[in-house]
Amino acid sequence: MSLSKSQLKLITSLQQKKYRQKHNLFVAEGVKVVSELLRSSLKIDTLFIVEDFTFEADTSRIIHISENELKKISTLKAPNKVLGLFEIPEEKEIKENGLIIALDAINDPGNLGTIIRLCDWFGVQQIICSKNTVDCYNQKVVQSSMGSITRVQINYTDLHPYLKETLLPVFTADMDGKNVYKTNLPREAILVMGNEANGVSEEINQLVKNKLTIPRFGDNQQTESLNVATATAILLSEFRRG
Amino acid sequence: MSLSKSQLKLITSLQQKKYRQKHNLFVAEGVKVVSELLRSSLKIDTLFIVEDFTFEADTSRIIHISENELKKISTLKAPNKVLGLFEIPEEKEIKENGLIIALDAINDPGNLGTIIRLCDWFGVQQIICSKNTVDCYNQKVVQSSMGSITRVQINYTDLHPYLKETLLPVFTADMDGKNVYKTNLPREAILVMGNEANGVSEEINQLVKNKLTIPRFGDNQQTESLNVATATAILLSEFRRG
Repeated sequence: MSLSKSQLKLITSLQQKKYRQKHNLFVAEGVKVVSELLRSSLKIDTLFIVEDFTFEADTSRIIHISENELKKISTLKAPNKVLGLFEIPEEKEIKENGLIIALDAINDPGNLGTIIRLCDWFGVQQIICSKNTVDCYNQKVVQSSMGSITRVQINYTDLHPYLKETLLPVFTADMDGKNVYKTNLPREAILVMGNEANGVSEEINQLVKNKLTIPRFGDNQQTESLNVATATAILLSEFRRG
Repeated sequence: MSLSKSQLKLITSLQQKKYRQKHNLFVAEGVKVVSELLRSSLKIDTLFIVEDFTFEADTSRIIHISENELKKISTLKAPNKVLGLFEIPEEKEIKENGLIIALDAINDPGNLGTIIRLCDWFGVQQIICSKNTVDCYNQKVVQSSMGSITRVQINYTDLHPYLKETLLPVFTADMDGKNVYKTNLPREAILVMGNEANGVSEEINQLVKNKLTIPRFGDNQQTESLNVATATAILLSEFRRG
């Protein structure tokens, strides 16, 4: 068997969110990421494997394709042997315990992927995204999360009413907050991180009582700010270091 | 005046390191980054500004171009009003004091840009790169460092002999190192960060006595590792938090 025209069209269409939602499918690529997703509870729809490449997978839904065909459906610079179509799982109910990350309008897929990977590392099991945050089944998010997407629960919701109702203490990063290195941080909390250019929206910022600052070092006052993924890394590390 | 064919050719060629070195020029784009570079000690070669856009710059080397012409020379998805050709400054001597970051074969321009920005934030004034680390005048590095490139000194050298000779204590990140949260870290040190896929090279790893681990949280043993930029963020934060 090889790649049909309709498959090519389907896979290309999945680069857009509306078609991912229509078909309830997303794409993952490369031996490592696809293997991790196959080991998870996700359901595989179709697995494309390059001819003559040995890849063990417990599914009959395998189509062998040529390297050239893989190039056509891949979005990677260096296509890597396998590409899987996986079913988008149903959203579960939000788990409101432990440490939670809330994301307000994160735009960049690479940043979301990195934050998912960070959450996985630091044992954060729940990410709550505003509805205008980039889709976690965007291919670049899937690739940059490196399989962590299977171990962290991600929900999309209206962030403002959610944060208004929560009983957990809510924190955010702010240039004029308390020095994070000198603040006692609780084990259970929601940490809100904001948009790359504009930070946390004004409406949500007003809800947040606990503002944290990562101090600049030295007398340099010009440095803009930290990238949202690196700031999340430092704050998660502070919440977890005890 | 408008864009000449030879200018178009020159600017496009600067996407490659060999032409940057040949012409001793690099490209920076967008109002914010170009403004920061103009305020620094860097020398401007030519400044391209979109017609009818008001942009103050203390140079006579200005060429007004159309939005369409900017599109032709820009590598940004959303070209932003100005593009500057700057002279690559001469490499200064390595400053061996304070906290220093050494990079062993960092490949991804976005990672290098993010690390430069982190160094700027945390008052790290010196980055020492192995010769096979991505060029810091690569356009993606310049854009993602957000002007920090003008405030952090970057040198390229043979890392192994350098680290062999240094009198400063040398640290690196390692899966089997000491818990960084429980280690007393000195004010003066070199922190070596390694390649995205392979980490620090074996040869250099053998030189490093002080290995640091950022502990995983929870019982998840599957998470791969942290991205090099986020790991650098957490380690720099630990060196600086006191």
